[in-house]
Amino acid sequence: MKKIKVAVLGCGAIAQRRHIPEYADNPNVELVAYADPVIERAEEMAKTYGGKSYTSYEELLKNEKVDAVSVCSPNYLHAPMTIAAANAGTHVLVEKPMASSAEEGEQMIEAASRNGVYLMVGHNQRLMPPHVKARELLESGQLGKVLTFRTSFGHPGPESWSVDGRASWFFRKDEAIMGAMGDLGVHKSDFIRYLLNDEVTEVAGFIGTIHKEETDVDDNATCILRMKSGAIGTLMASWTHYKGGDNSTVLWCENGVMKIGTVDGDEVIVELIDGTSETYKVGAMATNEKQVPSGVIDSFIESILTDTPPAISGEEGLRSLKVILAAFESQATGKIIKL
Amino acid sequence: MKKIKVAVLGCGAIAQRRHIPEYADNPNVELVAYADPVIERAEEMAKTYGGKSYTSYEELLKNEKVDAVSVCSPNYLHAPMTIAAANAGTHVLVEKPMASSAEEGEQMIEAASRNGVYLMVGHNQRLMPPHVKARELLESGQLGKVLTFRTSFGHPGPESWSVDGRASWFFRKDEAIMGAMGDLGVHKSDFIRYLLNDEVTEVAGFIGTIHKEETDVDDNATCILRMKSGAIGTLMASWTHYKGGDNSTVLWCENGVMKIGTVDGDEVIVELIDGTSETYKVGAMATNEKQVPSGVIDSFIESILTDTPPAISGEEGLRSLKVILAAFESQATGKIIKL
Amino acid sequence: MKKIKVAVLGCGAIAQRRHIPEYADNPNVELVAYADPVIERAEEMAKTYGGKSYTSYEELLKNEKVDAVSVCSPNYLHAPMTIAAANAGTHVLVEKPMASSAEEGEQMIEAASRNGVYLMVGHNQRLMPPHVKARELLESGQLGKVLTFRTSFGHPGPESWSVDGRASWFFRKDEAIMGAMGDLGVHKSDFIRYLLNDEVTEVAGFIGTIHKEETDVDDNATCILRMKSGAIGTLMASWTHYKGGDNSTVLWCENGVMKIGTVDGDEVIVELIDGTSETYKVGAMATNEKQVPSGVIDSFIESILTDTPPAISGEEGLRSLKVILAAFESQATGKIIKL
Amino acid sequence: MKKIKVAVLGCGAIAQRRHIPEYADNPNVELVAYADPVIERAEEMAKTYGGKSYTSYEELLKNEKVDAVSVCSPNYLHAPMTIAAANAGTHVLVEKPMASSAEEGEQMIEAASRNGVYLMVGHNQRLMPPHVKARELLESGQLGKVLTFRTSFGHPGPESWSVDGRASWFFRKDEAIMGAMGDLGVHKSDFIRYLLNDEVTEVAGFIGTIHKEETDVDDNATCILRMKSGAIGTLMASWTHYKGGDNSTVLWCENGVMKIGTVDGDEVIVELIDGTSETYKVGAMATNEKQVPSGVIDSFIESILTDTPPAISGEEGLRSLKVILAAFESQATGKIIKL
Amino acid sequence: MKKIKVAVLGCGAIAQRRHIPEYADNPNVELVAYADPVIERAEEMAKTYGGKSYTSYEELLKNEKVDAVSVCSPNYLHAPMTIAAANAGTHVLVEKPMASSAEEGEQMIEAASRNGVYLMVGHNQRLMPPHVKARELLESGQLGKVLTFRTSFGHPGPESWSVDGRASWFFRKDEAIMGAMGDLGVHKSDFIRYLLNDEVTEVAGFIGTIHKEETDVDDNATCILRMKSGAIGTLMASWTHYKGGDNSTVLWCENGVMKIGTVDGDEVIVELIDGTSETYKVGAMATNEKQVPSGVIDSFIESILTDTPPAISGEEGLRSLKVILAAFESQATGKIIKL
Amino acid sequence: MKKIKVAVLGCGAIAQRRHIPEYADNPNVELVAYADPVIERAEEMAKTYGGKSYTSYEELLKNEKVDAVSVCSPNYLHAPMTIAAANAGTHVLVEKPMASSAEEGEQMIEAASRNGVYLMVGHNQRLMPPHVKARELLESGQLGKVLTFRTSFGHPGPESWSVDGRASWFFRKDEAIMGAMGDLGVHKSDFIRYLLNDEVTEVAGFIGTIHKEETDVDDNATCILRMKSGAIGTLMASWTHYKGGDNSTVLWCENGVMKIGTVDGDEVIVELIDGTSETYKVGAMATNEKQVPSGVIDSFIESILTDTPPAISGEEGLRSLKVILAAFESQATGKIIKL
Repeated sequence: MKKIKVAVLGCGAIAQRRHIPEYADNPNVELVAYADPVIERAEEMAKTYGGKSYTSYEELLKNEKVDAVSVCSPNYLHAPMTIAAANAGTHVLVEKPMASSAEEGEQMIEAASRNGVYLMVGHNQRLMPPHVKARELLESGQLGKVLTFRTSFGHPGPESWSVDGRASWFFRKDEAIMGAMGDLGVHKSDFIRYLLNDEVTEVAGFIGTIHKEETDVDDNATCILRMKSGAIGTLMASWTHYKGGDNSTVLWCENGVMKIGTVDGDEVIVELIDGTSETYKVGAMATNEKQVPSGVIDSFIESILTDTPPAISGEEGLRSLKVILAAFESQATGKIIKL
Repeated sequence: MKKIKVAVLGCGAIAQRRHIPEYADNPNVELVAYADPVIERAEEMAKTYGGKSYTSYEELLKNEKVDAVSVCSPNYLHAPMTIAAANAGTHVLVEKPMASSAEEGEQMIEAASRNGVYLMVGHNQRLMPPHVKARELLESGQLGKVLTFRTSFGHPGPESWSVDGRASWFFRKDEAIMGAMGDLGVHKSDFIRYLLNDEVTEVAGFIGTIHKEETDVDDNATCILRMKSGAIGTLMASWTHYKGGDNSTVLWCENGVMKIGTVDGDEVIVELIDGTSETYKVGAMATNEKQVPSGVIDSFIESILTDTPPAISGEEGLRSLKVILAAFESQATGKIIKL
Repeated sequence: MKKIKVAVLGCGAIAQRRHIPEYADNPNVELVAYADPVIERAEEMAKTYGGKSYTSYEELLKNEKVDAVSVCSPNYLHAPMTIAAANAGTHVLVEKPMASSAEEGEQMIEAASRNGVYLMVGHNQRLMPPHVKARELLESGQLGKVLTFRTSFGHPGPESWSVDGRASWFFRKDEAIMGAMGDLGVHKSDFIRYLLNDEVTEVAGFIGTIHKEETDVDDNATCILRMKSGAIGTLMASWTHYKGGDNSTVLWCENGVMKIGTVDGDEVIVELIDGTSETYKVGAMATNEKQVPSGVIDSFIESILTDTPPAISGEEGLRSLKVILAAFESQATGKIIKL
Repeated sequence: MKKIKVAVLGCGAIAQRRHIPEYADNPNVELVAYADPVIERAEEMAKTYGGKSYTSYEELLKNEKVDAVSVCSPNYLHAPMTIAAANAGTHVLVEKPMASSAEEGEQMIEAASRNGVYLMVGHNQRLMPPHVKARELLESGQLGKVLTFRTSFGHPGPESWSVDGRASWFFRKDEAIMGAMGDLGVHKSDFIRYLLNDEVTEVAGFIGTIHKEETDVDDNATCILRMKSGAIGTLMASWTHYKGGDNSTVLWCENGVMKIGTVDGDEVIVELIDGTSETYKVGAMATNEKQVPSGVIDSFIESILTDTPPAISGEEGLRSLKVILAAFESQATGKIIKL
Repeated sequence: MKKIKVAVLGCGAIAQRRHIPEYADNPNVELVAYADPVIERAEEMAKTYGGKSYTSYEELLKNEKVDAVSVCSPNYLHAPMTIAAANAGTHVLVEKPMASSAEEGEQMIEAASRNGVYLMVGHNQRLMPPHVKARELLESGQLGKVLTFRTSFGHPGPESWSVDGRASWFFRKDEAIMGAMGDLGVHKSDFIRYLLNDEVTEVAGFIGTIHKEETDVDDNATCILRMKSGAIGTLMASWTHYKGGDNSTVLWCENGVMKIGTVDGDEVIVELIDGTSETYKVGAMATNEKQVPSGVIDSFIESILTDTPPAISGEEGLRSLKVILAAFESQATGKIIKL
Repeated sequence: MKKIKVAVLGCGAIAQRRHIPEYADNPNVELVAYADPVIERAEEMAKTYGGKSYTSYEELLKNEKVDAVSVCSPNYLHAPMTIAAANAGTHVLVEKPMASSAEEGEQMIEAASRNGVYLMVGHNQRLMPPHVKARELLESGQLGKVLTFRTSFGHPGPESWSVDGRASWFFRKDEAIMGAMGDLGVHKSDFIRYLLNDEVTEVAGFIGTIHKEETDVDDNATCILRMKSGAIGTLMASWTHYKGGDNSTVLWCENGVMKIGTVDGDEVIVELIDGTSETYKVGAMATNEKQVPSGVIDSFIESILTDTPPAISGEEGLRSLKVILAAFESQATGKIIKL
C-alpha cells in the first residue's frame, strides 16, 4: 500500500509528544516535512524522524506534495493553516480548539468541503478507553437518563508542558486567544456532548485570570451547562490545580451514578440503585504528566486510508468550540447564553 | 442554675430527630411545649419528653411562658412563627432556610432586635467537626489563597427523610417555596461563606424540576459563584443523587488542595505542592441516612445561658439565603446576578 | 387476583429455610398445607405460616385442593411425591437432584406432561445474581470461546445444615442415594451447562467416602467433563472442605478469564488479554452459612401465574442429573462415560 | 577443589535462561562445551560463558572429557542424549519430561546405573521455596490427612518462551511428543507426588488440542488423580490460559486448607478449622514471565561434589512421567488407568 | 465424675468478668460460695451462678467444704487469703501479683506445700494463643538467639475496669501496694521470662505517679532488664496510655525479628534476614476493653482433676514478682538491682 | 556574593554521602580541600568535586585559607580537629557524637568561642521533616503534657555503611570510643531533648557487646530516661536489629499519642482521646539504606552567611552527649546517674 505522506505544521509540545511519534509508529505513514518558525525545532524533528524542515508553513505547502497535515500551531494559526492546507489539497488534522471564533471554524469546514479533503479535530478525549467504555455503558441504558453531571479538567498550567515553559504562547492572548478554556475547557465541552450524545443549549460562566501573573489569558473557568435533554451540570477548567487536578466526570442518572476518572486505576465505576456496582479498569486517563497514545493520529490515517469521514469532524469540533465561546460571552455580558 | 424553658414549633422530622432529642440531652434545658397542626405528633413528643402539646403555635405562645423556641415548621412559616415568638419575648432558633424571601428575613432580624431576643439560624454545617477543622486549617494560612472550589450536597430526595414521605410539604411549592435549594443549597452557600470567610458577589444558576414527578419545586440546581476575594466555584444541590450523593467540598488553593467529605473516614485531606499531605479523621459528615448530633441546640442554649450573640446570627442566615435567592433570580431572568 | 394455593411436602432444612419463607413472602401465594412424617415439623410450620399439617403426603394430596407443591423430601422420595402430586393435578417444584435415576426423572416429566402441570427443578444456582451476570457477560462475546474451566462446590458437610444434624437422611444411602454429588455436584453440572449454554458429552469421575465415618454415601467427587463445544474442565463436589470451601467457577477463554465466586465481594471478575479488567459486585454467592433468597419460589409462582413453562424445566434437571449419574458410572466401571 | 567440567547439550531457552547461567554462577563449575544443531546458539554461549561449541552432541561427548552434562534438547532427544552421555561416563541432568516413554525412562536409569553415574531430572518445582515450605508444613502434621486437592499450571503457551517462538519444536509432535502435558503437566504430577509424599494409583484425563492452530500436540489437559492414601484431586495443564494462568495447588485436609501460589505475595497460606491462619511469604513462585533461580543446577553439582545420590532421581522422574503417560492412555482408550 | 467445688474470694471485676464465668462454663466445676465485704456483690454472684454468699472469707472457709478457691481480692489480701485457704485444705488460684512482698510469696508457697494443695498464679498472658505461638516459634530455633527486646502493657487506667471506678482499691496504696506495676508490669516480667525461657538478672526502673491525681500508687514505670542469656530490653507499664496503649512485645534476634501484638489481626509476625516472613493470625490479644477467655481457670481445674502441678506455679509467680520488686528497689535506691 | 570556602576533614562514608554532596549542591559554597589519611579518598573527592587533597588535616589547615570545615573523622579525632580548626579561625561543623568526653566537648566550645567562630554539631535528626512536624504539633499544645515515651534507633550495624565495611574504625574502641551509642544513641538523646524541649535529669543503662564478634565497642544499649518535666521513657540504640530496625519515637501524652516513624509513609500520626486522628505524610525518615538530604549543611552555611548562631550549637551537642555518657557511667557503676 502506498504510504500517506504527512507534514506537521508547528513543532511544539503537542507535535513532539503526540502527533509526530504517533505518525512515526503508524506503518501507513511517511513523515515528509515539518514547519516551525523556530527552525531548530523543525530540524530536530526532521533529524529524528526523517523528512525536511521549513520555517514557513506556506513554503512547506508550496514545496511538498503531502496527503495530510497536522496543524499543531498556537491557536490563532489554526484557521489560516487549516485553510491553506485544505486549499493545497491535503487532509487536515487540527488541534483543539479548532479556531479562535465560530466564523473561522465555519470557514475551515467550508474550505475542507470545497477542496474535497477531510477535516478532523484533535479531540482525543473521545478516544480514551475510559471514555469509550463510559459511553458504551451509558448507551446500554442500564443507568437510565442522565440528570446532572460535573466534569472538570485541571492541572498546574502549561508552564511545565510547553517546550517554552513560562514563555510559551499559551500565555500570550493574541496567540492563544483562550487560556485554560481553550486548553482544557473545550476538551470537556466536547467530551460531555460526546458522552451524553446530547447538545448544550444554555451556558453561563465565570472566567478569569485568577492567579497566573503577567498574562491576561484565562487561567480558570467555572461554567454551568444545560443540555437539550434537560440535564444540567458544571464544567470546570483550571490551570491552577497545583494539587488535586484531574480529568474527571461524574454522571448522576436515574438508576445510579457513573464515575469516570475519579479513582486511580478504577477508571470507570458504575454504582446502581439496586446495590450492585461495576468497576472497569480500562487503561489510564491521560494527564499532562502521564501521556498515553491518543489514538487520534491512527484514527485520522484510518479515515484517509478508508476514505470515510473522520471520527471527529470539523462540525463536531465547531459545536464544542461554540460552548466555550458562549461561556466567554456569558462572562462578558453577564447573561446566560443560549446556543 | 435555672433551666431554660423551651418550646418546639413544628414536630416533623427535623424536630423529632434533632431538635427535641438534643434539647432533651442538654442538662440546662426543660422542654415545656410542642405545637403541630397534626396534634398526634405534638402529643407523642409531649409523652416521650414531657411538656404540653398544642395544635396552634399562637396558642402555645399565649399560654406558655418559655425562654426559647425552635421553629421547625415548613419553610413558609419560618418568618411568621419567628416574629410571633420574638414578639412573645422568646429567643428563637429557626431552621434553614430562615425565610422565603429577603424581606421576611429582614423582618425577622428586626423583630428579634426590637424585642431584645436572640435569633439563631440552624446552619448546622458550620458546627460539623470536619467543617470546623477545615476552616481552622484554612485560617492557618498553609494553603494560601483559595482560587477555585466546588461544593455539592446531594441525596435521593426528602421522601425517606420526611415523616410524611412522598406526601411531605417538601414537595408542595406553597409551603416549601424552595426544594433542593432550600433543603441543601442554602447549606452550601452558608458553608462556603463560612469556610472561606468571604462573601458571594455574583451568582448564576440553572434550577429545575428534572426528575421528581407531580411537584413543581426544584429537585436540582447547579450554580456558579464568584467570591469577593476573586475565587470562583460551583455549587450543586440535588434531590436526585440516587447513588453517589455526598456532602463534599474541594478547595484548590495557591499551595495545594483541601478535600472535605470526599473520602469515607478521611474527612479532611490536605495535599500540598511540596508533596506532603495531611489527613484528618475528625468524625463523620452527617448525611440524611447517618445523623450525628448537630451541636446547633447546644450552641443556641449556650448563647442564651451566657448572654452572648448566637454563633450563627440572623444576619448570617440572611446572607446565605440571598445567595440562593440570587440563583433563582438568575434562572428566572437569564442573567448573572450581582449581590 | 386469586392466590396460588401451595403445599410443601417435607419440612426439613430446605423447606424451613428457603421454600416456606419465600412462599410466605410472595404476595400471590397462600400456604395451605405441610406434610412430614415427623409431624411436629409440619405442625410448627402450620403454626408459624398458617395452613394444615399432615404426616402423610398422600393424605395431604387427597384432602387438600392445592395448585402447587414443593417437594422437599429426602432424595429417594422426589420421584414418587412428584408423580403423585402431578397426578393430583398440581404443579410441582422439586428439589435437586430431581430423582434417583434417569428412569425416575423421565417418569416425572411424563407425569407432569400427561397431567398438564408444570414441573420445575430447584436449581437455584441459575438464579443467583453473580451467575446471571456471568452468563450475560459470556453471551456478550467479549471473552470469545470457553476453552477450559474448573467449577467446584465444597463445604464441611450437611451436619450443620440439616435439621437432624449428623443423624440426617443425608448420610443414609437408601434415602439420599447420593451424597456430596447429589447435594453439590448436580448444582455444578447444572450450572456449567447453563453458563456455557452447552452440553456435557463425556465424564469421568473419582467418587468416594473419604473422610466421613459411619456412612457409605459419597463425601467427595472429582470429575472431568468434556463439553460438546470441545471445552474441557474439572468439577469438584466436597463435603470435607472444612476450611477453604467455596462455590466458584473459573472459565479460561480465548480472550481472557472469568472468575466467579473466587473473591469475596467481587463476585464476577473478567480479565482480558488487552490488559483491561472488569469487576462486578452483584450480590453475594449463597453458601450454607450465608443464605440469600433463592428466587426459585418466585420464579415458580410466576410461571404458574403467567402460564409459561418454568425457567428450569424437568428436562433441564434431568440432563444435569445424567451428568452426575455418568460420573457414578465412571467410578463403578473404570471407564469414561459418553452422554 | 577441582572444578566440575560441564557440557550443555541443546542451547534453547531452558539452557540459555536457567542451566547455563546457573552453572556459570556456581563456583565449583567450569562450563567447557555446548552442543546445538543451530551452531550459532552454541557459539553464542561459548562466547559468553567460555568453552567450545559443537553442532553434534556425539562429537562433543567424543572430544571433550566432561564430568557432567545437562540435557536441554527437545523431548525426543532426552533419552538418546542421556544414554550416550552416561555411556561416556558423565553424570546427567536431564530436563523434564525425562523421556518419551516409560521404556526410554527405564533404559536411561539402567544406563546411568551401569556406568556408575548419577541421573537427575530437572523437576525444579520441588526446590521452589513455597513448595519446600508447603511440604515442611504438611509434614508437621498440623493439617492432618490430605483429603482432596487441585493443582494446575497454565500459561499462554510456549510461543513467548521458546527462542524460536511459534516455530518452536514445542509444537512439532515428532520432537515434542507431548505438549502442555510434557511442559507443565509432568511438573504437577511430580509436585503432587512430592508434596503429599504419596503415589498416584489411578488416572483419567481429557487431553487435546483445543485452541492452538496448525499443531497436533496437546495444548490442554484436565485429569483426575487418585492417590494411594485415598486422596483424590484434579490436575490441569494448559497452554491457553491467556489470562488467569498460574501455578497453584490447594489441599483440603482434615484440619484445614493449604493454598500454594493462589495469592500474589502470600505464597503459602494455611487456614485451620480452629479459626487461626498462617501466611508465609517465602519468595515468588516462578512462572514463564518471572524466572527465579531454580536451584536445580546447584543441587546437581552438590550431588556430584559430595557423591550422594541426586535429590530428584531418575526413578522419581520416571514415576512422575508415568502419571502423564497414563493420562494419555486414558484419553486414548476411554478408560481410567491404574498405575 | 465428681465436680470440683469452688469458692471465689473477692467479687470485684476480675472475679465477675473472668473467674466466675469461666468456672461456670467448665463442666467439671460447681460454684458453691462467694465472699466479699460488700455483701451485695457476693449475693449477686450467688444469685446468678448458684451457691452461697459470705461477707467474710474466713467464715466461708470455715463453713464450706470446697476443693478450690480463687483469690480475687485487692493485692494486700492475696497472701493471707491464700494461706488461710491452703490451711483449710483447698487448692488456690491467686490473682497476680501473687503477693505484696517476696516474704509473703514464700509463705504462700510454703503453706500450699505443707498442706498438700496446689498453688497457681493467674498469669493469663502465658496462655494467650499469640503468646503460646510466639514461644513455640522461638523454641523452633529459626530466629536464633534473642538479643534485645521491648515489651509494654499500657491502658488508660483501672478507672473503667474496676467495679468501683475511680474509687477503686487500685488507687489506695495500702490495699494495692503497687499500681501499674502490679496490674500490668508483673504480667510482662512473667511473660518475658516465659517467652525467652530465661531469668532476669538485673533491673533498673523509673516508677512514679506521673499523672493520676489524688493517689500515691505508681501510674507508670519504665524499666530495663538484663537476662541471664545476655539479652537486654525494656519493659514499660502504664496507666496513662490514654490512646496508643497496647500489650506488645518485640524480639530482635540473630536471624530476624518477632513482633507480637503490634498489628491488629496479625498477632505474631516473624521477619527473617533471608527476606521471608510469616504471619500468624491466632486470636486476639486480650486488652481491658476486649476480654477473651483467659484459659487460666480451665488450666487450674485440669491441674486438680489430673493431679498434676499447675501450669503456672507459685514459684514462677514469685520469680516474676521479684523482678517488679527489684524495679521498685531501683527507684528507691538509685541503683541497678541484681537478682 | 562571595562563596564560603569549605574544607572537609575525613573522607569516609558520612563525608562522601552527605557532607560533600550537600556542600556541592549549595550555591554559596566552594569546596576547596579534603583531608584523609587514606589519601586516595581525599583525591577521589577532589577529582569529583574540585579542590585539593591532603593526608594531614594539620597541613590542610596550615595551607588553605578556608571559612569553614566539616569534621567527619572517627570519633576520637572530633575534638582535636575541631579545636585545631577553630584555632585556625574557621567555623566548624562536627559530626556526632561531638566528642569522646564532656571535657573535650567543653574545650571545643571554648575554642570556638575564643576564636569567634561558630561550632555546629551534625545532629541531623532535628532537621528531618517528620521530626520538625512532630515538634510543631507538640508545641501546638493539642496533645497536652508528654507523660511517657519510647525512642529507638536500630539497624544491622555499620558494616554495610562504612566505606571500610567490617574493618571500619566503628569497631575499634580506641578510635570509636563508643559504638551503637555514639552512632545512634546520641541521635535519640538529642532528638528527645529537642522534641520535648526538655532536659534529661536521670539515666540508667545496660550497654554491651552482645552479638558483634571481635570488637569491644557496644553494639546495643537500652536506657531509661527521666526528664525535668517528670516524663519518663526508654531509649534503645542497636546495631543488631538485623530485621525490624527503625528510627521511631512514640509519645504518650495527656490527650493522646503521637507516633513518629512507626508506619512507612505515615511519618507522624496523632491519635487523640476525643477519637479523632491526624496523619502527616511529610517525607521519609532517613535510614542507613535510604539517605535523604540532611539539611545540616545548608543550615550550617546559612548560619555563616547570615552571621547567626547555628541551629544546633556546641552546647546542645554537649548536653545530648552527656546523656549518653551518663548511660555508660550507669553501666559501669550499677547506679542511676543524675545529670
